[in-house]
Amino acid sequence: MHQGEINLRRATRLLQALRDGGVRHVVISPGARSTPLVLAATRCRDLQTHVIPDERCAAFFALGLGKAGTAPAVVVGTSGTAPANWYPAVIEAAQGQSPLLLISADRPAELQDCGANQTIDQTRLFGGFVRGYYPFPADGADLPRLQVVASTAAQALDRSRWPLPGPVHLNMVFREPLVPETFSDEPEAASTTNWRSDYPELAAAADAIDTLAGELSGKPGLVVAGPARLPPEFTAALGTLAAKLDCMICADPLSGLRFGPHDRTRIASGYDTWLRNPDFAKRHRAQWILQFGAAPTSAVLQRYLDGHDDHTRRILVTPAGPWPDPGRRGRHVLHAAPLAVVTALNARALEPATPDWCAAFLKEERRVHALLADPAQCPPEAAILASVVRQLPAHSRVFAGNSMVIRDCDSFLPGGDPPLALLANRGASGIDGNVSTILGLAAGSVPTVIGLLGDLALYHDMNGLLAAREVNAKLVVFRNGGGAIFGYLPQAGLEGFERYWLTDPELDYAAVARLYGLPYRRVETPAAFEAAFAVALQQPDSSLIEVIIDRADSLARHRAFWSRFSG
Amino acid sequence: MHQGEINLRRATRLLQALRDGGVRHVVISPGARSTPLVLAATRCRDLQTHVIPDERCAAFFALGLGKAGTAPAVVVGTSGTAPANWYPAVIEAAQGQSPLLLISADRPAELQDCGANQTIDQTRLFGGFVRGYYPFPADGADLPRLQVVASTAAQALDRSRWPLPGPVHLNMVFREPLVPETFSDEPEAASTTNWRSDYPELAAAADAIDTLAGELSGKPGLVVAGPARLPPEFTAALGTLAAKLDCMICADPLSGLRFGPHDRTRIASGYDTWLRNPDFAKRHRAQWILQFGAAPTSAVLQRYLDGHDDHTRRILVTPAGPWPDPGRRGRHVLHAAPLAVVTALNARALEPATPDWCAAFLKEERRVHALLADPAQCPPEAAILASVVRQLPAHSRVFAGNSMVIRDCDSFLPGGDPPLALLANRGASGIDGNVSTILGLAAGSVPTVIGLLGDLALYHDMNGLLAAREVNAKLVVFRNGGGAIFGYLPQAGLEGFERYWLTDPELDYAAVARLYGLPYRRVETPAAFEAAFAVALQQPDSSLIEVIIDRADSLARHRAFWSRFSG
Repeated sequence: MHQGEINLRRATRLLQALRDGGVRHVVISPGARSTPLVLAATRCRDLQTHVIPDERCAAFFALGLGKAGTAPAVVVGTSGTAPANWYPAVIEAAQGQSPLLLISADRPAELQDCGANQTIDQTRLFGGFVRGYYPFPADGADLPRLQVVASTAAQALDRSRWPLPGPVHLNMVFREPLVPETFSDEPEAASTTNWRSDYPELAAAADAIDTLAGELSGKPGLVVAGPARLPPEFTAALGTLAAKLDCMICADPLSGLRFGPHDRTRIASGYDTWLRNPDFAKRHRAQWILQFGAAPTSAVLQRYLDGHDDHTRRILVTPAGPWPDPGRRGRHVLHAAPLAVVTALNARALEPATPDWCAAFLKEERRVHALLADPAQCPPEAAILASVVRQLPAHSRVFAGNSMVIRDCDSFLPGGDPPLALLANRGASGIDGNVSTILGLAAGSVPTVIGLLGDLALYHDMNGLLAAREVNAKLVVFRNGGGAIFGYLPQAGLEGFERYWLTDPELDYAAVARLYGLPYRRVETPAAFEAAFAVALQQPDSSLIEVIIDRADSLARHRAFWSRFSG
Repeated sequence: MHQGEINLRRATRLLQALRDGGVRHVVISPGARSTPLVLAATRCRDLQTHVIPDERCAAFFALGLGKAGTAPAVVVGTSGTAPANWYPAVIEAAQGQSPLLLISADRPAELQDCGANQTIDQTRLFGGFVRGYYPFPADGADLPRLQVVASTAAQALDRSRWPLPGPVHLNMVFREPLVPETFSDEPEAASTTNWRSDYPELAAAADAIDTLAGELSGKPGLVVAGPARLPPEFTAALGTLAAKLDCMICADPLSGLRFGPHDRTRIASGYDTWLRNPDFAKRHRAQWILQFGAAPTSAVLQRYLDGHDDHTRRILVTPAGPWPDPGRRGRHVLHAAPLAVVTALNARALEPATPDWCAAFLKEERRVHALLADPAQCPPEAAILASVVRQLPAHSRVFAGNSMVIRDCDSFLPGGDPPLALLANRGASGIDGNVSTILGLAAGSVPTVIGLLGDLALYHDMNGLLAAREVNAKLVVFRNGGGAIFGYLPQAGLEGFERYWLTDPELDYAAVARLYGLPYRRVETPAAFEAAFAVALQQPDSSLIEVIIDRADSLARHRAFWSRFSG
């Protein structure tokens, strides 16, 4: 058989197996060696292709697509340094537990280690950051060998989901000639074998729940809901649990608990502010802390949690992966599904804590909400975020960039009725790839996607804007002079602060928008933003709104806001 | 001692040791964890800092700085995905054998694997692509521990140079507080210990040279000078050797042999054209091939070399590293310095081949030169390259981007008297990082730096342009509709060719130039280029010239040029 035909059959079988497992999106960067994969992707039914020339962007775009849907997206790249550009997204996917399928084309063994052009050792290119590495040799297009290809692909997809979701790397060797001599016009044959993966219900052992119920019942405690993607049933069940125990739920902006029509009485979103009061924090130690999801975004909350000593039961509920416990205070890890744990607890006899316990937290929470209701008391970012929430269509997805935006969301997004999904790249919390993640999210989402990000994050992934024309994403960039977060750190007082830490690229973002064909508005006030955002939402295309933030003023008003609780 | 002071002392001692070893440039991207390294770099005498916010650009910029000077540059980045952005440059440096020092800041052990923010496992982040990995713990600012820091740094620098030049990774852990409470105003203390590294002369064994001389003498052979950075003495010695043996030297555009005032009688630069004649190639087989440097850029030359059977002695002279032998036809690897080998050979009695042997090659070479002298017979790129060479100030450095530009240089730069240094990233030959490499080269060079690159390469590293304001580089971009090289491959005939292979970003490069404050000219003819380039050379600043290339016309004229030899 002609080598081009062998290449195409192998690439096709691989993508069919992934497609049969639910994959729908293939993100492609240009290259010669990857030609069989591109040919296969364009000829495979039900696969949608996206072309992103910069591989770093492509991988983050695929990460965003994965966050949008139920199946991971595929990113396809050619040999050489091309896949090395995926590394930041690979690490983010690994640490953020986001499934991602990376398929690199490679050159055959005879071209390795002999000075052949564009040839590098792609074996385990991403080291320990992938859940699996799957090499595919160049040969074999008979049925048994194609079965091996399909089975391996199905296994790789499975591994990207279970037991710890994350990236997998498939390295596919192709030998020249890469292109077949002829193409059949026959419709794609039905796959002869389908793989099916079923995943277990991670129920906690009954005796573990019994013990836990005894530890929580009647005692002053706290639920911490960190960043997580959990089913809607979890939200309701957790509310019931908090009511039974009469405790608050400190709900991270990425917990999915702040927004929605559910009962939010015990959902706390202001803790990053009220826990700054050392007196309050000291006088309100919990006897138990039940934590779901990843470690919370708020360093203030984390410090409060870590201020508890070993007399406090600290329970981490996490199905798999590293313990979300930066303070190293957890003493009990419960490997089980959060919903299963909460449902099982709700079925036990539980007593509330004394009424004054929860009331004290509620009072602080109400004070923060009152403060947030008065824009004059808030930093300018708070008003912008409030405006975004006010105007959002139902079921919108909002992506919060690193590093100030997500923290402002934490402090200044108190929550509300609309079922708004907030997302972010918090696996490694880099400012890289934010634009591409937003646009990938938009490419895979029916609802409106809003991307909020800082100017340095926009610049870092500016190449990503090339994909903006293909999707519908409303980008909102906070122009605050570069790495504004450093203004809150001791570095702010150093000589050379602006040059070495802020590193403002000082670009004209109107020109950036023009370059990428994006409708653009520059606003300086919340009122102007309100109007510009309303227009953006009505347009069917992507757009960019630049929000001018006076860095010094913003910093002062952040501090003033918090100082009302820290004294 | 205050932890901030410990951090600063350790970082300072590390950079001092590198400085004492010759390092002069530190490329910094913003971050919190890397603060001690930034403080140390700004306070260390004789170190020049460069701030590049996008880490991918920063590493390529440092690579370019290293190519400009005699010592590797340092790139400093913060923890998390930041250093993962270096990966493409790391691989290019590894395969291109370019020294490069990568210093990542890291978080201490207590923050690893516990969900702490921006914390990843940075251990051996670049796998087998670095020559060495050096971890530095967080503790110890007493003299013995600082000696360990300095000694390790000196060893890392040494390893980046010998035995195989390349990148090294230093991972430096810092614990909070990162910033010292006070700074001393004392001038930096003199280093108490200096390390010195001496490197051997890699002379070939006398009997190996005797045998080799016997194999070459009086027989029809060919010297191949691949990409290499070799001393000027090598050029002269190799010319003498070729004269003695009466053979041609196929000189790669990156060999350093094409340009300069030396005798270029036997320097062939037209082989990529004349070896396309299968008849000529078949009738002119060498009995020996003596190869220096990396595998040649020209696939045509490589095919000709690999067309020889085992009756041809194929000798690869290479100090260390992978054998530069993609065709796997080499049977003799001579690990020695090229200059030492050539000098030793010249001291032996050597007879020339019969006069008709070399004459046949010379005749072909002259035919190519004659063709190149007539612009009407050449592709448009040839006239642009000729114009660049004609106008260049002496000792200019020209960087040729991947992937069409370097091949056009190969085909259409016949060489000449000015001592022009041509450089490229040919380790992995990626289109990534080309802009930043050029600007880094300019930051480290006194002579004028010209960067020639394709539109896709410019787009891929567009963030790199942020550094253009700081240096003086003349960028010339060939706008040929994206990945024009694919037009020469079988992919050109495929459905979806423009979308999946060319992938033209279709950007307005005038707007790109404005965005980055670069004087800009768009030209459509060689005459217009000649004028625009003259203006650019007179300016003290960086600038961008966009050369419009009609892709179809260029392709047809490339083919027509070559077809005069392939029939």
